Amino acid sequence: MEHIKIPKVENVRMIDRYNNKNSIVGTLYLTATHLIFVDPEANAETWILHMHIASVEKLPLSTTGSPLLIRCKTFLSVTFVIAKERDSHDVYSTLIKLCQPVNIQNLYCFQYTSSSEELVKSAGWDFFKLENEFRRMKVPNDEWQLTTMNKDYALCDTYPSQLIVPRAADKSILLGSSQFRSKGRLPALTYLHSNKASISRCSQPLSGFSARCMEDEQMLQEIKKTNPHSKVLYVVDTRPRINAMANRAAGKGYENELFYENTKFHFLGIENIHTMRASLVKLIETCEQKSMNGFLSSLESSGWLKHIRSMLDTSSFIANAISKGISVMVHCSDGWDRTSQVCSLAALMLDPFYRTIKGFQTLIEKDWLAFGHKFNDRCGHLQTDPKEISPVFTQFLDSTWQLMLQRPNAFEFNERFLLILHDHVMSCQFGTFIGNCEKDRIDLKVSEKTFSLWGYMANHMNEYINPLYCPGEVEDIKPNLSPQLIRFWRGMYARFESGVHPRENIGDTLLESREHCASLEDHVQHLTKRIGSIKNLISKSAKKLQTNSANLLQTATGRSINDNKFNYDNKKLSELQSADHDHPLKSDDVLSISDCNNEVNQITNEINSVALDWKSLRSASVCACSTPFSQEMKKTHCWRCGEIFCTRCIDKTFPLPGHNSGKPVPVCRACLKIVSQVSP
Amino acid sequence: MEHIKIPKVENVRMIDRYNNKNSIVGTLYLTATHLIFVDPEANAETWILHMHIASVEKLPLSTTGSPLLIRCKTFLSVTFVIAKERDSHDVYSTLIKLCQPVNIQNLYCFQYTSSSEELVKSAGWDFFKLENEFRRMKVPNDEWQLTTMNKDYALCDTYPSQLIVPRAADKSILLGSSQFRSKGRLPALTYLHSNKASISRCSQPLSGFSARCMEDEQMLQEIKKTNPHSKVLYVVDTRPRINAMANRAAGKGYENELFYENTKFHFLGIENIHTMRASLVKLIETCEQKSMNGFLSSLESSGWLKHIRSMLDTSSFIANAISKGISVMVHCSDGWDRTSQVCSLAALMLDPFYRTIKGFQTLIEKDWLAFGHKFNDRCGHLQTDPKEISPVFTQFLDSTWQLMLQRPNAFEFNERFLLILHDHVMSCQFGTFIGNCEKDRIDLKVSEKTFSLWGYMANHMNEYINPLYCPGEVEDIKPNLSPQLIRFWRGMYARFESGVHPRENIGDTLLESREHCASLEDHVQHLTKRIGSIKNLISKSAKKLQTNSANLLQTATGRSINDNKFNYDNKKLSELQSADHDHPLKSDDVLSISDCNNEVNQITNEINSVALDWKSLRSASVCACSTPFSQEMKKTHCWRCGEIFCTRCIDKTFPLPGHNSGKPVPVCRACLKIVSQVSP
Repeated sequence: MEHIKIPKVENVRMIDRYNNKNSIVGTLYLTATHLIFVDPEANAETWILHMHIASVEKLPLSTTGSPLLIRCKTFLSVTFVIAKERDSHDVYSTLIKLCQPVNIQNLYCFQYTSSSEELVKSAGWDFFKLENEFRRMKVPNDEWQLTTMNKDYALCDTYPSQLIVPRAADKSILLGSSQFRSKGRLPALTYLHSNKASISRCSQPLSGFSARCMEDEQMLQEIKKTNPHSKVLYVVDTRPRINAMANRAAGKGYENELFYENTKFHFLGIENIHTMRASLVKLIETCEQKSMNGFLSSLESSGWLKHIRSMLDTSSFIANAISKGISVMVHCSDGWDRTSQVCSLAALMLDPFYRTIKGFQTLIEKDWLAFGHKFNDRCGHLQTDPKEISPVFTQFLDSTWQLMLQRPNAFEFNERFLLILHDHVMSCQFGTFIGNCEKDRIDLKVSEKTFSLWGYMANHMNEYINPLYCPGEVEDIKPNLSPQLIRFWRGMYARFESGVHPRENIGDTLLESREHCASLEDHVQHLTKRIGSIKNLISKSAKKLQTNSANLLQTATGRSINDNKFNYDNKKLSELQSADHDHPLKSDDVLSISDCNNEVNQITNEINSVALDWKSLRSASVCACSTPFSQEMKKTHCWRCGEIFCTRCIDKTFPLPGHNSGKPVPVCRACLKIVSQVSP
Repeated sequence: MEHIKIPKVENVRMIDRYNNKNSIVGTLYLTATHLIFVDPEANAETWILHMHIASVEKLPLSTTGSPLLIRCKTFLSVTFVIAKERDSHDVYSTLIKLCQPVNIQNLYCFQYTSSSEELVKSAGWDFFKLENEFRRMKVPNDEWQLTTMNKDYALCDTYPSQLIVPRAADKSILLGSSQFRSKGRLPALTYLHSNKASISRCSQPLSGFSARCMEDEQMLQEIKKTNPHSKVLYVVDTRPRINAMANRAAGKGYENELFYENTKFHFLGIENIHTMRASLVKLIETCEQKSMNGFLSSLESSGWLKHIRSMLDTSSFIANAISKGISVMVHCSDGWDRTSQVCSLAALMLDPFYRTIKGFQTLIEKDWLAFGHKFNDRCGHLQTDPKEISPVFTQFLDSTWQLMLQRPNAFEFNERFLLILHDHVMSCQFGTFIGNCEKDRIDLKVSEKTFSLWGYMANHMNEYINPLYCPGEVEDIKPNLSPQLIRFWRGMYARFESGVHPRENIGDTLLESREHCASLEDHVQHLTKRIGSIKNLISKSAKKLQTNSANLLQTATGRSINDNKFNYDNKKLSELQSADHDHPLKSDDVLSISDCNNEVNQITNEINSVALDWKSLRSASVCACSTPFSQEMKKTHCWRCGEIFCTRCIDKTFPLPGHNSGKPVPVCRACLKIVSQVSP
């Protein structure tokens, strides 16, 4: 690990730009993983993960000291004013080193160990095997085969080892096509629709001004033929035509329509990573300005929303073609940025599976991780060329959010899910997004040496649920791309702006209310059933009692109560005497005092096991474990006591005796003790 | 009424700009009050109230006919293409007349009769008496008096008849000040804070370049003196300084600080009605454009958000002064537009009462209706100078909406409440917003001749509830006016844009879930109580039975069951025989079959009276009365059967036998019949 020159600086003034009237004086600590600022008066701590730091900037000296402006990948921006310039410089140079290690082994994931006993290192690494996704799409099949040519990454080292290609494409075609494509990224299947139309992806051809490749041409024909319903294959070049043309000078470029039969070419105008990086910088600047006049035009001139729209537009074009039964092959330049964006977004529009939590993770595993989106370079995990950094994945999440806004019932997950994904892609806490491709992660042995984000997230599912989700209701999403419908995502880029976010997350409140309803419904069902059985018991007992007492009297007096006939007999009396041993009022069918007591205790226990009132989310400020609740934190009710806990304190579920369903439900630790003792 | 030349036109093509791919051919009807377009294929009807029509425009002839573009005050915009130009012209000229009558007696409110038996004409007219609001603010008091000088509107005909002025201001001061103020609108109290700081309002002084008025100067001193805690009075001129200066040439203008002791002047830069009218036109044009590049800059150049912000900014300035204990006197030019806006918004920020439904209506009654905001002129109810039309009240609602976004828990009402207010101010269906001032409405006898919007709204309260409201939680609202926080109100201006609004209103869904919870909670309480009483009955009976049967046996056999002693006696037997007449097992304490049956029936009835499952709001498309549910309509569950109804079909409440509280809850008509028969 990096040596930390200056682990502690006193008398530091923190100014966050959201609240710059009240600067706070406190102590700054630098640990191996975090910068921590402690406000002694409020007893509050601000933690910043070094890996989340995007930039550290020395601002001009002020009268109170030397200010350092820290901008984070989470869009937090904060300034620390350090009295002594020398201390300031030491903090600066330490942070610069820690936020972008030179050596990949110094990334956070290789140090991180889970504090939770629930999470083991192996958890999650086998959740999303590519072959399972292939099986889900029903490949291999008659038209598509799994090729092993890339099993050692010999064909293409930035591709997954498993590739699905047309059955009719033999090794020479695959090899030839691969050699004719930039970085060897040959056409391969990424999504197969049930109508046999498919989305394939690749990189640009090495066509220059006139080169051609028979194998590549044949490859496209084979792809076309996998879909018997269409005579044409669309080739979508996501780039603006001028960019594609410019690439020809470097021996790359785009397909010549004359050489590729039955194909139709489309340029769709998504800008490159440099434009996107510059756009995000402008977007962030826009968020920081105070004047009214500038905001909207500045937002517009950042181009961010226009870029998001172009992504949705292209994806929508692809999804429409697939819906109509036409297969599409997609590429950009290298086929790992724009191609990943639009292939995954088109699939998201087409297939409800990808709109589930599991499906969305599958989509990321496939179109981003397996097909080699360069997370290391694009997120700037390590010290590299800053020109490689670009918010390509952030744009994918943003586009997904736009779709969620338009179809709130079509997604299983909520905004928090996207934010957590975003922040953990940046945090390097998990090995999932380390490296630039599948081969990198295998070489690094991340699945042995680090934790998986999917394993972590699997333990926090209840935080990601969208209460409006209605599975099965929405098939295709055809987004409305009217300009006023592409929105600025305050929840992402302006999430630290005070007053931007309501104190109460209405989605969580709805979820809470629905769960409360479910608990009460279950309880009512149980009580109703209870009442039913008591009713039976009562009427049975009443009947029995009448019969018994009639018998008793008959026995005792020698006559039937009903026929009123007197029939005294001595023998009957002796029978009556012996009745003592098997007293009719003590029989199993009738209630005894101890039966009653048991019944009463049991019902009381059942009734006490379900909270009627649930504490209001709004008023909850601190968990029982004394963790303060922040706005974005998921708060969970104990279904037994109705109190509110942080997710760490309420990690267990257990069935409540007062519920009919016997379904395990969230209970706090104290309640867990009680119910788990009582129940069998 | 206007004669309708052409009550029906066949073969009309309707194009709404939100959906212009699919134009619909149908029949256009013109009734005395509505334009109705019937789509025979979909069996759908589009109703447009004549009074809601803002403009009718003849577009150039097309090959299919003569198009009429109709823009509504509700921000709906629709084009009808009529085959024959002559028909089109007839429709045009009829609509032009009907949408803006010449004679005030032709406004809709004078024809409207309520179809609901629930609403009587007198309802609502006495809900918001100004004296009640004065009493709430605890005036008259030692400092403030009620003057009767304006009881016949002699002092100022656009003011309320009841005015609160400083106790020390005698008649000559009031008269003098009134004569020195534009339109006689002298300073009068509108809001008194508990800290004795007050908001007074008036019009600009007739000061020209040098005129002064001792009475007016004294009036301000007296206002200042009502607040013993501050040595200074703020005078807020809401206009940009340059506008105020320009007014001097016409003998009007602003106060000369030299003449008014201990006052501090502030110009706050809200633009005039003409700027606001032009801004709204640009805003609407912005909504209609399709290109991405234009939207945000066009929204910005409309200036709409900047104007909303300036209103909030000025109001916030006033509210801050009041909070600090400094009284404020507010005026603009005539003191009925900008002054109404900022006085009411400042009060909304200061006083939680105004954030309730009743309080907001009170605020409108006071600062808008009583103090003479010219609704007739500003809304264009009648054919008048189009330059008088301006969205001043709309801006007040918009500003309120901005505050609601920032403090969702501070308001009792929801967005629907604001939209209904807006649309009914425009509709003229109720007499509430007819005329330009209180005197107009008295002269027109609106309270006798028309219905009150407040009466109507009182019957629809459950449609306006904000489920996040938390009374008592928020005292002052200090809005964050950072430019990115002033939002474009899609729910108002773009509400007919398809895809803009989620299909499900999450606020309503939350409200529904909360009500469902409440019902289940109440039911659980009832069942628990029921179980409690059954438990008692059982244990009592069991005890009794044991005692009785012990007695019985003892009686029959002459021995105690416990001591096992044999004590046969003939006499006992005869006693046993007579026991038949007073059989211990038939006593009142013990359950009989008929008791059981009654019990069982009653419990069954109670259990059946509460719906466990509530039908999902999302899937509800048509009410039982076959009214299709539109997105903005409130849908209500019957708490007994769990089905969903429109507000017309579920206008009654009744207590359910399965609830513990006995609280009347919404039930549909069919269920009402059942429960009202069963219950006492």
